[in-house]
Amino acid sequence: MITESSPGPLRSAPVMVGKSAERQVEEVVAAYVRAADHRDGPAMAALFTEDAVVEIYYTGDGGRTPLGSVRTAARIGQAVAAMMAPHPPRGWSHHTTFNHIVDVDGDTATIDVQFLVHNVVGRAEPEGGWPPGTSGAQGTITPIESGYNRSTLRRVEGRWLIAEHVISHDLPYAFPRD
Amino acid sequence: MITESSPGPLRSAPVMVGKSAERQVEEVVAAYVRAADHRDGPAMAALFTEDAVVEIYYTGDGGRTPLGSVRTAARIGQAVAAMMAPHPPRGWSHHTTFNHIVDVDGDTATIDVQFLVHNVVGRAEPEGGWPPGTSGAQGTITPIESGYNRSTLRRVEGRWLIAEHVISHDLPYAFPRD
Amino acid sequence: MITESSPGPLRSAPVMVGKSAERQVEEVVAAYVRAADHRDGPAMAALFTEDAVVEIYYTGDGGRTPLGSVRTAARIGQAVAAMMAPHPPRGWSHHTTFNHIVDVDGDTATIDVQFLVHNVVGRAEPEGGWPPGTSGAQGTITPIESGYNRSTLRRVEGRWLIAEHVISHDLPYAFPRD
Repeated sequence: MITESSPGPLRSAPVMVGKSAERQVEEVVAAYVRAADHRDGPAMAALFTEDAVVEIYYTGDGGRTPLGSVRTAARIGQAVAAMMAPHPPRGWSHHTTFNHIVDVDGDTATIDVQFLVHNVVGRAEPEGGWPPGTSGAQGTITPIESGYNRSTLRRVEGRWLIAEHVISHDLPYAFPRD
Repeated sequence: MITESSPGPLRSAPVMVGKSAERQVEEVVAAYVRAADHRDGPAMAALFTEDAVVEIYYTGDGGRTPLGSVRTAARIGQAVAAMMAPHPPRGWSHHTTFNHIVDVDGDTATIDVQFLVHNVVGRAEPEGGWPPGTSGAQGTITPIESGYNRSTLRRVEGRWLIAEHVISHDLPYAFPRD
Repeated sequence: MITESSPGPLRSAPVMVGKSAERQVEEVVAAYVRAADHRDGPAMAALFTEDAVVEIYYTGDGGRTPLGSVRTAARIGQAVAAMMAPHPPRGWSHHTTFNHIVDVDGDTATIDVQFLVHNVVGRAEPEGGWPPGTSGAQGTITPIESGYNRSTLRRVEGRWLIAEHVISHDLPYAFPRD
């Protein structure tokens, strides 16, 4: 909590300037991407209202094809473990979001973001160490998903939680077949 | 608009804390990248002052080679349609910006950003559906442009508009020849 | 510095609303990535407290392997020149950060970010100009590093400076051998 004094006669009555509501909402998204990359179901579930819904669409052909939806925070957390592939050895991912548009109205807020997901695969160090001449980070980083997310949040007892989360993928999505 | 009470004797006189000017300026950039990716000329024109100018440079060789400039909001909007290639089927783009530095001085502001443009091309789903074993997003995402943008904005009747927009590309730029 | 009037009886005593502390901290990171990409040692050194420490780890295998550390602002600045490869002709880089989580407590702050480093290599324009049909940005942009940075900052005489900076790489790192 930061305290900034008002000028002049109000100097003795500081105005408390804490983290803005818009920033609090952005940091829910920051926690969301970290939970996704850590495949941390409980951390993900804790970001949603109990009755929250996640809807997933493919929109890259100009239409809006539903890919699935998940309802309740508990099932959203379970889906992180069930639907996201675990990282392979030396593998990681980065869900990243950009150019946020945040609107807060009382205890409701919306945030619209662009997203990119990067897949990270480290190279295994050979026995005997890296060959002569090798230098720098060893592995590949590949952007694999992109699109827009739009979330509606509610402030519950001072904490912002996602009530509705709409993921719109640019790329068509294939699901494993039996 | 969020209302936060001041502590102590001022509690009855709430301080209105809305979206900060810096955030408003960032959201003009957020609207700019969306207008670019949607190839939406009117939405783009609406972000600029009537007499605005866009200047484009190649700076990747340490110099500053002019690539072109466009003056007036109307022509800037037209340029989105005229100069940006339309998206192919299942194609999209993401103009993304990072690490903003925003300075507001009264009704004038500057914002300096890094940018990356990603090109997105979806894979067509084969007749009969995706082959067995196919899973996840289908297509490629390629970063194709990068650099720095520096914009100067003016607040006109409470709305921030871009008056000057300087695009500095890292990569040399080829224009189609006749 | 923006001035916003309080409503009602306080209208004559404006509340000064400047850049928030959280934003100031983010802009230290924005200056950090620019200093790294410009290979500007003095600009980098100026962002750190005199006794600052940078620690670098590889964490992509679930562990935390130390890759090195540098102490004092002066040596951190020197390391930018000594340890980062200079850009080749038409080459550049973009250190970019995402999804910041910022916590300010008085004159101390932490910021946690995801990062990606992109390598940019421009194509040389052939003698006689680009071949017919060539259009757009010419060159390649490749993400080469990713991970998380966590910085602790101190506010010294009104300016935020990095006191501790921990870089956690997703990818293993090879150092040139003699």
